[in-house]
Parts: sequence; structure tokens; C-alpha cells
Amino acid sequence: MTSQATETRSAADARGPAEAGRGLPRADFRTEPARYKHWRLSFDGPVATITMDVDENAGLVPGYELKLNSYDLGVDIELYDAVQRLRFEHPEVRAVVLTSGKDKIFCAGANIRMLAASPHPWKVNFCKFTNETRNGIEDATENSGQVYLAAVNGTASGGGYELALACEHIMLIDDRSSAVSLPELPLLAVLPGTGGLTRVTDKRHVRRDLADHFATKAEGIGGKKAVQWRLVDETVPRAYWRERVTERARELAAGSSRPQAGTAGIALAPLEKTRSDTSVSYRHVAATLDRSRGVAEITVSGPDADPPDGMAGVRAQGAGFWTLAVTRELDDLILDLRTNELELGTWVLRTRGSAERVLACDQLLLHHQDDWLANEIVHYLKRTLKRLDVTSRSLIALIEPGSCFAGSLLELALAADRSYQLSGVFEDAEPGASPGEITVGEMNLGPLRMGNGLTRLATRFYGDADGLTAAVKRAGEPLPAEDAEALGLVTFAPDDIDWDEEVRIAIEERASFSPDALTGMEASYRFPGPETMETKIFGRLSAWQNWIFNRPNASGPDGALRRYGTGQRASFDRKRV
Amino acid sequence: MTSQATETRSAADARGPAEAGRGLPRADFRTEPARYKHWRLSFDGPVATITMDVDENAGLVPGYELKLNSYDLGVDIELYDAVQRLRFEHPEVRAVVLTSGKDKIFCAGANIRMLAASPHPWKVNFCKFTNETRNGIEDATENSGQVYLAAVNGTASGGGYELALACEHIMLIDDRSSAVSLPELPLLAVLPGTGGLTRVTDKRHVRRDLADHFATKAEGIGGKKAVQWRLVDETVPRAYWRERVTERARELAAGSSRPQAGTAGIALAPLEKTRSDTSVSYRHVAATLDRSRGVAEITVSGPDADPPDGMAGVRAQGAGFWTLAVTRELDDLILDLRTNELELGTWVLRTRGSAERVLACDQLLLHHQDDWLANEIVHYLKRTLKRLDVTSRSLIALIEPGSCFAGSLLELALAADRSYQLSGVFEDAEPGASPGEITVGEMNLGPLRMGNGLTRLATRFYGDADGLTAAVKRAGEPLPAEDAEALGLVTFAPDDIDWDEEVRIAIEERASFSPDALTGMEASYRFPGPETMETKIFGRLSAWQNWIFNRPNASGPDGALRRYGTGQRASFDRKRV
Repeated sequence: MTSQATETRSAADARGPAEAGRGLPRADFRTEPARYKHWRLSFDGPVATITMDVDENAGLVPGYELKLNSYDLGVDIELYDAVQRLRFEHPEVRAVVLTSGKDKIFCAGANIRMLAASPHPWKVNFCKFTNETRNGIEDATENSGQVYLAAVNGTASGGGYELALACEHIMLIDDRSSAVSLPELPLLAVLPGTGGLTRVTDKRHVRRDLADHFATKAEGIGGKKAVQWRLVDETVPRAYWRERVTERARELAAGSSRPQAGTAGIALAPLEKTRSDTSVSYRHVAATLDRSRGVAEITVSGPDADPPDGMAGVRAQGAGFWTLAVTRELDDLILDLRTNELELGTWVLRTRGSAERVLACDQLLLHHQDDWLANEIVHYLKRTLKRLDVTSRSLIALIEPGSCFAGSLLELALAADRSYQLSGVFEDAEPGASPGEITVGEMNLGPLRMGNGLTRLATRFYGDADGLTAAVKRAGEPLPAEDAEALGLVTFAPDDIDWDEEVRIAIEERASFSPDALTGMEASYRFPGPETMETKIFGRLSAWQNWIFNRPNASGPDGALRRYGTGQRASFDRKRV
Repeated sequence: MTSQATETRSAADARGPAEAGRGLPRADFRTEPARYKHWRLSFDGPVATITMDVDENAGLVPGYELKLNSYDLGVDIELYDAVQRLRFEHPEVRAVVLTSGKDKIFCAGANIRMLAASPHPWKVNFCKFTNETRNGIEDATENSGQVYLAAVNGTASGGGYELALACEHIMLIDDRSSAVSLPELPLLAVLPGTGGLTRVTDKRHVRRDLADHFATKAEGIGGKKAVQWRLVDETVPRAYWRERVTERARELAAGSSRPQAGTAGIALAPLEKTRSDTSVSYRHVAATLDRSRGVAEITVSGPDADPPDGMAGVRAQGAGFWTLAVTRELDDLILDLRTNELELGTWVLRTRGSAERVLACDQLLLHHQDDWLANEIVHYLKRTLKRLDVTSRSLIALIEPGSCFAGSLLELALAADRSYQLSGVFEDAEPGASPGEITVGEMNLGPLRMGNGLTRLATRFYGDADGLTAAVKRAGEPLPAEDAEALGLVTFAPDDIDWDEEVRIAIEERASFSPDALTGMEASYRFPGPETMETKIFGRLSAWQNWIFNRPNASGPDGALRRYGTGQRASFDRKRV
């Protein structure tokens, strides 16, 4: 039974009631190499090659052709899958060549007709996911020793160049026509949507005035100037191309920190998922979709059993090992709800199970951080929690008797906009239960850093060193509601008498507010303090892009996105804002 | 003759053709205490008090009443003037109390009917200016030793609380009803527009989940909880209010770094300005407004004469001293064009005069940084250049024979998105001229930091330490175009043959691009590298706010901003984006 068999509706089916008539499929983020339509994976010892060869007739949504290696969400879902599998299934891979299977074109970026025809939320979610995938490529380079090399064997424009920018090293073929470009502004009246502006200056250190010139030249820049301006690392004549790419990939592989060679990977077996209009469920994660209240009630279950004794046991369990399994499920659920359930504006987060077992799994992984698999699992959990931080939904954590908000699962409460911990128990329902507790664990103290470079705990206590110290001191100790509230680890700690009303009002109130204003507020409050390239991409750049996407100059009937390719020039309101 | 006499049209006149029919006045940013309608200034030794007492019938634009000490641009123009005058005209002032002249209300923030009725660019420019004024209050506290104390003697909501947040110390009256609040999200479906979200977490270190709760409670928080949550510094019972405010102000004054006492200030005499539909001119600054090309051609002239020997001479010249005079003129011009000339999307920046004299004025100020007036002038220049950085216009600097881009004026070229330096001279027009040169001076190496905390030179060479070192090494040396280009100090250095076409194309091309996309691109490229509270406010927060302002949930006919006060609830599109 493949994962598809448990789906109640396939990706091509019509949408649920909320999106009826839009013609957008419910996006399914699960795939596997045998089903790829747009990418090929090949292996040569420590070097893997990911070849982009987009099937122009296999767009995810009808209505556009994916010409010139342009991409839509479906193309990017496969890329994301490939990047993930390389990390888990191929411990032997130390360098990854990203290249094109087309002649003279590397990648033309996001498909313009797709963008022009897409409603605003689809565009925003598409950009968010592609951004996360490119950040994942950088994360693989930095933290898995899988160093990405962009072998730009033809023109890379817009998102195509941004894909190269996510790689550690960019080689551009020197054939007198291939160039790199960011033509979004001159051609489409929007910004590059996957971090191009930020990476050009902050990662590659292109001087800002040169970057300005570059982003206004639709035809782009190739040859020596592209190297001088730091847009690419080197250009290579066509005659030496293959040889030089191979050579460079071998060099990068040789310098990689990837520790293992000759080790077997872990197969990422198809996720078991049941999806209906009212629920999503996996082995350890379940969500109830309450459309009338606009709420997704998400419950994450702790491990069913104690973890194995060591990493050999984890390898034997493979994708079934709790931390990996629950992370994959959460990852898929976040992507599913974020993309497909726009009107479920509040996610209520609960856990249930044994805190001790959660902490035992955490310990096992953290005490074997030199093990490549332990390292991969922790970084994957980190990336998945980061998705939550940039998800435009209100997150409310409810800490009740029977819950297991400890260590890695406490991160869910720390990621939430608010948390409520029941003081005592539900007297009517379960008077004999033990009160819910939370436990700060090692996982909260370093390995799962947010995009801003801080732990969620340090972010919470930003500017309050004493508060942070006091909370860290209690690590390992199960904390009842009163202590957790006094330490500032939860927002509120109502008792049984107040719980129902306080929580209900908080959730109802959230549903009464403007969804847009909530998005802006949460995007601000979730990232106090320092900024990084990553937070700049999701905060500053995405906010500007969202604004531009909403403006008639881009998306109106006479806007550039809509008029592209019609032969008519866009008509702009010339007021500067 | 007052400054008003040279205005060709008063503030209440109709707009030029570009804005005809909008009913918005051309905003005039010049005022003086004798003309204040909304504020009172009073002095008691080292303590000044600014009392907000808004005249509800004196809004800048017809159509709304400024009830409950709410403000519009006109109110904020007076506040800006007061803050500036305290720095220059009152060296004896070491603490400033900001309070309300109304009973039970401190300030209700930006006027909602004004916001609801204003076109998008007006809202955005209004928020930008109010943000700059609040940053100026913090700058006075930090760099002038004029420490601001918010004496919140009634409810402070929205922008009213944000005004308090800009102060160093916040006192809230404890009368069982006064509270502080950020009700924008629940009541208006927008974000607090003047840095409230950022300052709550990043300046006052309110925990982010408490901040979330706070920003959803329209009625706000007062009493002990306001102190516990760090929203205010102290609450004071009504009976002790005056006494305690006076006491606190004296304490802050005693701890102030303001060096002088008993020194006379510098009168900020009315600016001489001539304004028509096609030009703006002052003594040292002039702008030609070319509506057909969408360009403002701005020329800044260097000093007419050598600077005086020392600071006594500067004091004698007062507001006539070149650096101060040119800064005031630039400040006014930026505000005028930014607010009133939305369709002039490109500002071309030129200088003319003696680079030696510019550098001599710079030296004089920098060699007397302990002098309060020298300190004020340099910080004012810094703030004015920062305005340029956040101005949503394309900035192109042209460096030609006869120009004086040196030291403080070189900052104009460094602030520009691009700069062109003519290699050689204009052979036909002035074959005997000396080629234009640029000179890096001391002013470029520290005193005029951008909002990101870096100099414009360091920002330019972000990530390129060698490039920065090479440029700094040549400080003091007049650099011809070839050298400046090789050092990376200018973008391009065309010669006479290419100049006209290259520059013309650059300007024409800029006018052909989407104004919105240019705004987003420039806002990104101008701030590579590190972020600060200030850049977060102008980058992240403003971008989200702009997006939200454009969304029907806020500004549509059924949106919250438009429906506020009608008794009808807003109707929201519930999709989360």
C-alpha cells in the first residue's frame, strides 16, 4: 500500500467547500523519486547530481505550460523531497550538483502564467515553501556536509538564479549567451520571490549599487562581469564544462564534513496519512478541522515505547523511530494545512503521552550528535519547527493533564503565540488525573534554533537574562502550572473553573480579528531581537513582496504580471509609496 | 518677512495637477512655537514640558475632528518642530516631560477618520514621518542628553502609547481607569503604525506572548499588571502625580549627559523657501520638478565662504552656519517632495561648490564634538540623511565637474541607489573645467551612521573588508572617476561620449518600472547586513503595515478602518495569507 492509497482524495481532485470553484487542487506534499516528473537523481560515489528537466505538460494546476524549466509548486515539492532523501537515504553523498537537463537553459524561475493566474494566498504560500526549500539546501550544506554546487549550464533567470544562490558555489557556463538575471522587477513589476535580493548582498556580498543595476537588467549579466561582481563564482567554457564541474564537485566532496562513508541510509517510507474534509491523521499526529470555528485542533502523541538503547536500534527502526516519524508527520501536516486550509486561522496544539519517553528520545539523539543519523533527525526537527514560526496561523498551545510538553515537544508551546496550562485537573471529567506539567530539556537549550539564530527559550526571554537563567535552572524538572507561569514559561495558568471560558474566548476572539493584521502582528512578535538572512527573507522581503503582489501595478488587470506575454505593456499608477 | 511669505501657495491651497481633485493640501513642514495649535512648551530650569492639547477643529485636512488628543500630520509637524527646537534653542534643557493637557486622556493615537479617508500614499507617508519623529525623540535622549519622560496622565491608546514608548521612562497615572493599549488590531484591523510592536518586545522586553495578549485587548492594561509586564515603568496615584513627575524629571535631568548649562541656544530662524509647481529653492539647496520625466533634479551647494575659526564663530552665524543651514533645507525638501510629489519617482542628486570648504566645515564640527552645538549639528545631519535612506524614491547621484561630493556631501552619493561620475570633462560645454572628484572624509567614517548602525561606507562594502579598507586608506584624497570606480566608491564612470546616453537611459528606465517594485527593491538593497530596532520598524513592520493597509479587510468598503464608528462590524475575508 503506498501513501496514495490512504488519501481520501487525490491531488487532482476538487477542493473542499472553502475553496470550491477556485479550481485549485489540494496540494499533496508527499512524493518519491519513482514518481518524479521534473527531476532526475543520479549518483557517482560521494557526488550526487540533481537534474532539473521539467515536464512542461505536467503542471500541478491546469492552465499553464512549464516552459524553459520554469517551476510551479509541484516541481518544488519534488525538489524538496530530493533534498530530504539525499540527507537521510544517502549518507555517502558529500556534494550535490544541481544542474539542468535542458539545452541552454538552466531554469527560468517560477512560471509566470501560473503566478498571474494564482490567487494571492497561493502565491504567498508557494513563495514561502520555495524559500524553505532553498533554506533547506543551505542547511544541508552547512549542517550535513552535503555541499551544493550550482552547475548553471544555461541561462538562470529569476527563481532560476535564486536556486543557484542557495548553493555554496555557482559555476556559469561561458557560451557567450548564458547569463544570470533577476528580471522580476523590469518584466513583472514584482520582487524576486525566493530571497534573491537578500542573498545577493548579504550572502554573496555584491555591492548594493551593482545589485541595483543587476536587478533592473532583464537580460542579466554573464561572463567575466558576473564573476567580478560576485554574482557567480566562476565561468567555464563549454569545452571544459563537464570536466570542470566533476572536478569541482570532487573538491567540494573532499572538503565536506559529512562524517560517514559506506554507511547505509534510512529509507523514508511513504507516510501513512488519512485525509478527509474534517480530519488529517497519521500515526503520531492528528488534526481535527473545525471549519465553523476556523480552528485546527492538532494533537501530537509521544512515543509508544521507550527508545532503543543506542543508534543501532534507531537505525533498525529507521523512519519508524519516534522523533523522525513525528517530525515527518508534523512537516506534512503543517504544509497541508498551511496551503490547503486557509480559513482555519487558529491552530490549537496539544500533546499526549509520556514526557519521560519524549525526553529519552531527545537524550538518545543528543548524546550521539556525532552520528550522522542523529544529526539529521535533530536538524530535520529544527527545520520543521522553523516552518511553524513562519506559518501565518495563530498558534495556541493547551497544556492539560496527560500531555507531554517536554524537550522537543515543549518547542511547540514555545513556538506558540500563547500557551495555557491548566492549574490542577479537570475536576468533573478526570478528578484523579495528574496535573499537566512541562519540562525544559536539553533540546530547548541549543539544538533547535530559530531562524533568528536564538533558541525559542532565548527568544522568549529576549532582553531578560535573569528570566532565561531562572528557567534554564529548572531544566529537567517537571513544572506544574503555577511554577511554569511564575517562571514565564507559559502565558496563563487558569484553573478548572476558568479554563473553558478563558480558552474558548481566546480562540473565538482570534477568529474575530482580521486575518491580515494577525499575520503582520505574529510575524513581528515571533522574531524579537536579532535578525539573520533567513528572518530578513521571511520578514522584510516577504512583507514587501506581499504588498507588491496586492498592488494593481503587479496584479491588477493592467498590471505587469497579468500583461506579461500579451504584447501589451503594463500600465502603472506612477505614485511612489 | 516670515517664511510663509515666500510660499507661493499656502498649506491650505489646492494641490498641483498631479493630485488635483484629491482634496489634500500640500503639506508644509515649517512651523514655530508661536504658531502651534496643538502643543504647549514650558520650561522650568533643566526641565521642559511638552503638553499635547490638540485643537480638535484644527485638522490639517477638512473632514475629521481631532478628538481625544488624536493626531494627524499637522499635529506631528508641530511635535517634530518642538523636539528640534529643544535641541538647538535650549541647551539648558536636560529632561523633557511629554504629557497631556486634557483630562483623563493622554493621547488616542492617529485619528481614525483621517486614516480611513486618506489615500494609501498619504497613510504611508504619515506613518513614516511619525516614526522618524519618535526615533528623533530617542535620538535626543541618547545623543543630546535630553531625556524624555512620558507622564501618561490618562489613557494612552495606539499611537498615544507608541508616543510614550519613544520615551526613556513611562509613568502611568493610577486612577483606576487610565490604561495603555494597542487597540489597532482588534478595532481597526491594522498594526500599530509607529513601531509599537517592535518597541514593546525589543526595547521594553515585554515577553512576546504577553505582548500578543496585550495587542489584542482593545481596552488595554493599567495598574500593577502594566508594570509587571514592563509596559510602563511605574504607576503613580493621582494624589502624588505632579509631585512625582517633577521629582522624576529632576532625577533624569540630574543624570543627563547634556554638557552645558547656562549657555544660550541657537534660534532656528524661519527657513527661506520659494516653492512653485516646478521648483523649490532655498539658500543652498534647489530642486527642479520635471513632471513629464517624473524627476526631481536636486542641487546642493557647498559653503560660500570658509568656515569661521572656531565654535564661537559658528554660534555667531547660528542657523546661518552652512552645515546647519544646508541640513535644514535638505530636511525640509525631503519632507516636501516625499509627501507632496508622489509622481516624481526619481531624485537626481548633484552638488556644486568647493569640496575644500565642505571638508573644512566638517573638520570644524568634528574637532569640537564636545561642544553641544557641534554635536547637535552632526546628529541633525545624521537624522536628515537617514530620512533619505527610507525615502521611497530612486536616488541617482551625478558627479560632474564643479561638484563637491566630499565628506558630509559625499554621503548623498553613498546614500544613492546608483552614482555616476563623469570621467574627464564635458568637452563641448566646458573643455577647460577640472574633472569632478570625490573625497572620502572623516564624516564618512563614523559620525553619520545609518539606521542599521553602520556607516554608509561600511554598508556599501558589507562583507568586503578589503574593499572598505582600500577606500578608507584614500581618505582626504580627491579621487577622479577612474580611481573612484576602481575603489568601488561610485557605480559607473562613463566619459563624455557615453555620459548623456547612459545617464539618460538610467533615469528614463527608472521611470518605466513599477513604482511599487522599486520601493520594495530599494528598501531591501539599502540595508544589507545587520538590523536594528530602527531598520525593523522601517523595513519589516512598515512593509507588513503597507500590505495590511492595502487589503480589503482594513481599507475596503466593509473593512474595519472604514466601518469604525459606524456601529457596523467589519466583514472579513477569513483566508489567512
